[in-house]
Amino acid sequence: MFYRINMTDLTVTKADCPEYQGMGGRALSSRIVKTEVDPNEHPLGPGNRLAFVTGLLSGTGAPNAGRMSVGAKSPLTGTIKESNVGGAMGHKLGRLGISGIIVEGLPQSDVPYLMHVDKEGIKLMEAPQLKGLNIYDTVAKLHETYGKKAAIGCIGTAGERKMASACIGFTDMEGEPTRQAGRGGMGAVMGSKGLKALVVDDAGAPLVTFADEAAFRTAAKKLSKALLEHPVTSKALTTYGTAVLVNILNEAGALPTRNFSNGRFEGADKTGGETLEANCRERGGKTGHGCSPGCVIRCSQIYKGKDGEMITGGFEYETCWAFGADLGIDDLDQIAWMNRWCDDYGVDSIETGVAIGVAMEAGVLQWGDSAGVIELLHALGQGTPLGRIIGAGAAVTGQVYGVRHVPVVKKQAIPAYDPRAVKGVGVTYATTTMGADHTAGYSVTSNILGVGGKTDPLLKDGQVELSKNLQVATAFIDSTGLCLFVALAILDIPSGLEGIVEMCNARYGWNYSADDYMEIGRQVLRDERAFNEAAGVETDDLPEFFRQEALSPHEVVFDISREELKKAHEF
Amino acid sequence: MFYRINMTDLTVTKADCPEYQGMGGRALSSRIVKTEVDPNEHPLGPGNRLAFVTGLLSGTGAPNAGRMSVGAKSPLTGTIKESNVGGAMGHKLGRLGISGIIVEGLPQSDVPYLMHVDKEGIKLMEAPQLKGLNIYDTVAKLHETYGKKAAIGCIGTAGERKMASACIGFTDMEGEPTRQAGRGGMGAVMGSKGLKALVVDDAGAPLVTFADEAAFRTAAKKLSKALLEHPVTSKALTTYGTAVLVNILNEAGALPTRNFSNGRFEGADKTGGETLEANCRERGGKTGHGCSPGCVIRCSQIYKGKDGEMITGGFEYETCWAFGADLGIDDLDQIAWMNRWCDDYGVDSIETGVAIGVAMEAGVLQWGDSAGVIELLHALGQGTPLGRIIGAGAAVTGQVYGVRHVPVVKKQAIPAYDPRAVKGVGVTYATTTMGADHTAGYSVTSNILGVGGKTDPLLKDGQVELSKNLQVATAFIDSTGLCLFVALAILDIPSGLEGIVEMCNARYGWNYSADDYMEIGRQVLRDERAFNEAAGVETDDLPEFFRQEALSPHEVVFDISREELKKAHEF
Repeated sequence: MFYRINMTDLTVTKADCPEYQGMGGRALSSRIVKTEVDPNEHPLGPGNRLAFVTGLLSGTGAPNAGRMSVGAKSPLTGTIKESNVGGAMGHKLGRLGISGIIVEGLPQSDVPYLMHVDKEGIKLMEAPQLKGLNIYDTVAKLHETYGKKAAIGCIGTAGERKMASACIGFTDMEGEPTRQAGRGGMGAVMGSKGLKALVVDDAGAPLVTFADEAAFRTAAKKLSKALLEHPVTSKALTTYGTAVLVNILNEAGALPTRNFSNGRFEGADKTGGETLEANCRERGGKTGHGCSPGCVIRCSQIYKGKDGEMITGGFEYETCWAFGADLGIDDLDQIAWMNRWCDDYGVDSIETGVAIGVAMEAGVLQWGDSAGVIELLHALGQGTPLGRIIGAGAAVTGQVYGVRHVPVVKKQAIPAYDPRAVKGVGVTYATTTMGADHTAGYSVTSNILGVGGKTDPLLKDGQVELSKNLQVATAFIDSTGLCLFVALAILDIPSGLEGIVEMCNARYGWNYSADDYMEIGRQVLRDERAFNEAAGVETDDLPEFFRQEALSPHEVVFDISREELKKAHEF
Repeated sequence: MFYRINMTDLTVTKADCPEYQGMGGRALSSRIVKTEVDPNEHPLGPGNRLAFVTGLLSGTGAPNAGRMSVGAKSPLTGTIKESNVGGAMGHKLGRLGISGIIVEGLPQSDVPYLMHVDKEGIKLMEAPQLKGLNIYDTVAKLHETYGKKAAIGCIGTAGERKMASACIGFTDMEGEPTRQAGRGGMGAVMGSKGLKALVVDDAGAPLVTFADEAAFRTAAKKLSKALLEHPVTSKALTTYGTAVLVNILNEAGALPTRNFSNGRFEGADKTGGETLEANCRERGGKTGHGCSPGCVIRCSQIYKGKDGEMITGGFEYETCWAFGADLGIDDLDQIAWMNRWCDDYGVDSIETGVAIGVAMEAGVLQWGDSAGVIELLHALGQGTPLGRIIGAGAAVTGQVYGVRHVPVVKKQAIPAYDPRAVKGVGVTYATTTMGADHTAGYSVTSNILGVGGKTDPLLKDGQVELSKNLQVATAFIDSTGLCLFVALAILDIPSGLEGIVEMCNARYGWNYSADDYMEIGRQVLRDERAFNEAAGVETDDLPEFFRQEALSPHEVVFDISREELKKAHEF
């Protein structure tokens, strides 16, 4: 079931959308954008669409199937974009039988709107009381009216101001807004449409139906078993969260430090998962926290300060890095506050940290100045000119300050793995449709973690093939509603992938093979590339300085040629 | 004769560059950039080139042959770029027998350098005394050392700060820096290379040689005669300057007003050429001022305030518009000061005015707030965050403030002719290699002025063909060193074009036809498009709002489809 929400005439229309039947997640959100948005439309224009969609397995109770996809033409990159998010909403929308909510048009007034979704349908209502609130306050106010069981997605002032790095914050199972559809400025698109928040209440939703429920349960167990067996998904991530990667990447000489000028950070350990876990343990926080229903991996956490008050949650490796090594900051509590302010004002923490790193290179702040960074985040929250520069992302910050080391691809900030020293992920950054995005083909698996075989991260051999295969597989997984981290197990444990295939088949009565499902992934990439090409988006490459300047300690450059990169599209 | 200046090791090398022989102006600067610059190089990176080149007729004394071309990969657009400029330098470099000065590398210190050019060659020297000076002060300081007869080109603080809209200021025949290589951020490239100024002294230069001097003189007279006969080049421009167009475009309903939201401005007449001329006359200023040796048209002027002090010169239509109608300002003296500050800090007045118009739409200033605009220009001169946003150009300003009416193509601001109501120039904006640039194919000739035939500006018929032919012819004229305004005469008076053809032939001993010379123009466009394509630059189109929103008073949209626009490349 689909809903179309027109923000110009404030109509809500239920639709069957036969053209989108049998699709979910990224396959669906990208198809909606490709079909309905003129590639030359301004991302903040009336013709852009903002699609909230569920995955093929949403609402089924499948392990780790709590993710939803938010799609639009991105104001950050100008490309097609899907931003994938955990939290409580995906499962609830799935239970309500909703495949997609497609928001279109531009509002005629500047009163923000609230969309309420329950088993009766969708209601759009004025919400002047939410105007100018940041995300934590918005959620608190909505909890007063709708209770903590409702799932909430909303924007902060960054989204209201249409900052290109604005995210959409989503509540976790405790009702805290610790999850973000972070990348690509989906919050700015939501802000342009005058939509402040979605509230989803699945009380009384009918049971999800299955073509073969018994087969589904059996298949679900196969995936659960794989996740509980694999050391990465059952131990490393559960114990330390994704921040376990700080020390690992530092050891590998691939932790981008001080705006990608070094691969090692002397303060890495102080900002890594082991320190994070110890702080949580000592202060009454929590690790091993699941962000969405049915999560087996539980890589999230509640991070508290020395006084025992919660600072932040969903405190990821990429954030620990973006505000840590990339800025030369080694104080994890301060970094936790930076994450909190990003989540509260509503901006992508990766984009924001990298933008500040570029500004630091320009001399706006000194390396390591954590008080200055927090002041800058408040400036972003207030919408000062400097705050708006940072809020527009790393590429704009580089342009405004005349910096030439600007680590972006298609104007999106490169995250926490230096492409010179983790070459497989460098291929992904350069060639994915999404702009620099590690999750689009997470070659860190084989390059660093030794999952799914081992590829030397410093050599070019095999990296294009590795990235290509992962990009295809990821595009499929992103279409199911499953958390991408299931890949960490199924790359080593084939029965896990069988479980996914069999769950999809049992849910819908299909009889598809694993390769049939990979074809879904390939089609997603074709759709997205067609859109980007029509939008005239930049070439597939890394910024030139990664080819020109060697990274310490391994003294490596990115040496995979543009011609070789093109092979990533031959699938 | 060519010189290569390496700013890394501070070497000056004389070179023959056989691969560039027989080329001049834009054909030469674009060929240098295409040949020597990796399309993926960062515009502020070591591999970018900054080429100062003379035209085929520079130094010969041909009428209106005082222009030179400055080329680089643009930090504003990411495209190949040539910025064409008048003033005294082109002629002097031509007399010195210099075809091109190619600046490469990045400096190792932050001391600015001065390049001195005379008949002995080129000397590069430290110029710490110029650091942080703006353009008028830089010129004054250089006059103390080198006298007023030397031609100077230099950057202000905007160029030192590598602002993407930074221009290079050039002195006119009186030694005033009233001419700019304005568009595309050539000043930022110069700043990135640590080059503050060029000083060119042609004293004792040998006479320019001719294959057939008598034929050259005869041919030169043909062109002079055409320029002196045609009413546009002998009367309108000479009397009123280019600002004569303010009332004409307003009358045509094509004067973009308040960030392109209307085609008529109620204050047009107060900001137009007639008012400008009256002020010059009453205050002891000067119209009919030639900016470069041999200028017959003399469209420049010295504009003085009520107190009789010079405010500015080279006060063009596009500037009167960018700070006038586009911002809702109707005070010409205030606009003259805005031009002065742009020329002094060293930014393109078109880009800056349009960026401020976008900022006004976002509510940063009120429409018509001239005091606020001047304060904002000083903020730009001081490099405050808000000043840097504006200095980064209209596209960045739009992104920073979440504005969707951002009149740019390939990130360069659309100038003073609304493409909905002057459709021929709309085709040029969309399809030229240069980003939105009226001079690249000035269809205003036929659309508005009735020069070279008449095409209805409001209808799509014939516009693509018109723009295409003008783009080809312009690329050739830009290669000769002739001022583009010669086209205004030769489109109606065929003997003028014959004069150009015969001058080139007589100078070099060639025997080329007019169409052979047009082939030079076609090759320029091919070179430039090949570079842009390899650089992955955006598609050829106008911003979507020109297709979506009708312009008053004619209620027209831009209705030439993308498919039709592609035909502009079929030459």
